[in-house]
Amino acid sequence: MPALVNRQIRLKSRPPGIPQAEHFKLASVPVPPLQPGQVLVRNLFLSVEPAMRGWVAAVANYSQPVAIGAVMRSFAAGRVEESHDPAFPVGAQVTGLFGWQDYAVVDATGIERRVEEDDLPLSTALGVMGINGVTAHYGLLELGRPKAGETVVVSTAAGSVGSCVGQIAKLHGCRTVGIAGGEAKRALCTDRFGYDAAVDYKAGDFEAQLAQACSAGVDVYYDNTAGPISDAVMSHLNVGARVVICGTASVASWNPAPQGPRVERHLLVKRARMQGFVIFDHADHYAAARHDLAQWLREGRLVYLEDVLDGIEQAPDAIAGLYRGENLGKRLIRLA
Amino acid sequence: MPALVNRQIRLKSRPPGIPQAEHFKLASVPVPPLQPGQVLVRNLFLSVEPAMRGWVAAVANYSQPVAIGAVMRSFAAGRVEESHDPAFPVGAQVTGLFGWQDYAVVDATGIERRVEEDDLPLSTALGVMGINGVTAHYGLLELGRPKAGETVVVSTAAGSVGSCVGQIAKLHGCRTVGIAGGEAKRALCTDRFGYDAAVDYKAGDFEAQLAQACSAGVDVYYDNTAGPISDAVMSHLNVGARVVICGTASVASWNPAPQGPRVERHLLVKRARMQGFVIFDHADHYAAARHDLAQWLREGRLVYLEDVLDGIEQAPDAIAGLYRGENLGKRLIRLA
Repeated sequence: MPALVNRQIRLKSRPPGIPQAEHFKLASVPVPPLQPGQVLVRNLFLSVEPAMRGWVAAVANYSQPVAIGAVMRSFAAGRVEESHDPAFPVGAQVTGLFGWQDYAVVDATGIERRVEEDDLPLSTALGVMGINGVTAHYGLLELGRPKAGETVVVSTAAGSVGSCVGQIAKLHGCRTVGIAGGEAKRALCTDRFGYDAAVDYKAGDFEAQLAQACSAGVDVYYDNTAGPISDAVMSHLNVGARVVICGTASVASWNPAPQGPRVERHLLVKRARMQGFVIFDHADHYAAARHDLAQWLREGRLVYLEDVLDGIEQAPDAIAGLYRGENLGKRLIRLA
Repeated sequence: MPALVNRQIRLKSRPPGIPQAEHFKLASVPVPPLQPGQVLVRNLFLSVEPAMRGWVAAVANYSQPVAIGAVMRSFAAGRVEESHDPAFPVGAQVTGLFGWQDYAVVDATGIERRVEEDDLPLSTALGVMGINGVTAHYGLLELGRPKAGETVVVSTAAGSVGSCVGQIAKLHGCRTVGIAGGEAKRALCTDRFGYDAAVDYKAGDFEAQLAQACSAGVDVYYDNTAGPISDAVMSHLNVGARVVICGTASVASWNPAPQGPRVERHLLVKRARMQGFVIFDHADHYAAARHDLAQWLREGRLVYLEDVLDGIEQAPDAIAGLYRGENLGKRLIRLA
């Protein structure tokens, strides 16, 4: 039997800011034979997410930069095609950092998870049941610590993390305010994700709209953007507020850090807390988060949106597309 | 018996920034007779502290602004001269918000504390045994959560709060780095307060000196200044760092907030936390803090400096003097 052909998207050059299509190249190589302890995974869905900008950046980050010439690092969900490990039999559905490629030959220890929720679509393993949902669950509940009746504000509120944060906050009895860019995403917040109010940060009267939506102040701010959007939210913090720093999507480059109004006085006068986190530190929380998320999905109390692109050739431009704001919902690449 | 004459320093006008001598005036009024439940306190020491800038500011703060024409709000320590409450007999030493005046007629419920540590100088009740020491103890231990072997950086490191923070951190096995303005204060940090290293933020090579002193990174930053000093510290945060916002002494005005490099990316990548606090929220911590502080003082493991000005007429310029950096140690006004 001739070797399977594996199409791969590799990092061609180091992007100075947001990675664009030109920073990647397509290669085709044979799939190597399995070694003992290895598993062959046929990728069915590849993930595209804002954090990938950091993964290809040269500056220090929470993970080592993807090397030039290497397959682009990515979460993926697929099916086991050949296996030397009985824990992952042929046909099993698995997720892991399998990269932007058709096939991944991985050590069994490199598999993140065998997907047990066979009643849920496999694509959810990369979104609401994957790192996005788990990130929303951990950041909101463990760091944000929302209490019923409090106001929770979410930036990129219609995104794959943000939409989940808003719904979980609502499930905990909070009043939820979403911030999103453009009328389509703003409307999604209230119409689809159940936010009590939603504000378009691109609107001319954004600050006035936000002030109105947050007339009782802000107790939890789940921040996916940083920048001027956050500045507007900070001025409404209540005493004892918690600001959860999950992402900085609105800032194109941190080298050097852009200037903004200093936050120390807000934090002091409001006895408030700002805290950043990286979900990979909290693997011990994943199972509990997935338990809750699966239950809410099955009960119809948690909804999600996907933005599915077909074909691996769509991948190189897909990160830039996120930063252009063109997707509605979790962006995925579906492989044939 | 003719009524006692009470000299008072009153707020004359609302300072636009740091309060200066011209914003106060001296008045002399008779001491009124005691009502039931009241106590007459002869003030012996008046406190002067940076937070007073906030107390006279018009903008929202953690306490109501001192009214124009009112006696300047101040902690003070004194002796009970006349009493209608058996819990505070004549001769007892007490502290409270007695104001910048010779005598205070107060409801017994308005007395903060009867000073029981008769073996310690009464002046310590306003400094290391008072709000300064308690602030250092709470902020460092409850929010900073230092662990033995970690690096703790303190700004205004030779000040009444900062010097106490540095010593408590050292008592907990930490490596301590002080930041102070000018060679005299820098030298105090190492020579008197036991910091492992100290850096003069006014020196031309401040950032290089700080980098050298923090070669193992920063685990806890106890921030009394905000501003460019903090910017320099933030770039050295270790993963999991805690930044405790205790004061913003380097910033003359927050209306509008000055610009500075955004902190969100530091907090995210380093999984770090910034948290502000106001010690008055934590009265339940005072007794435990004073217990520790008194023990360390008696064992000679905690030292302090005082900057004593004689006479109430020194008070009006005394806050501005703090911001000019002219004091070494806790600033007090001693009344004859």
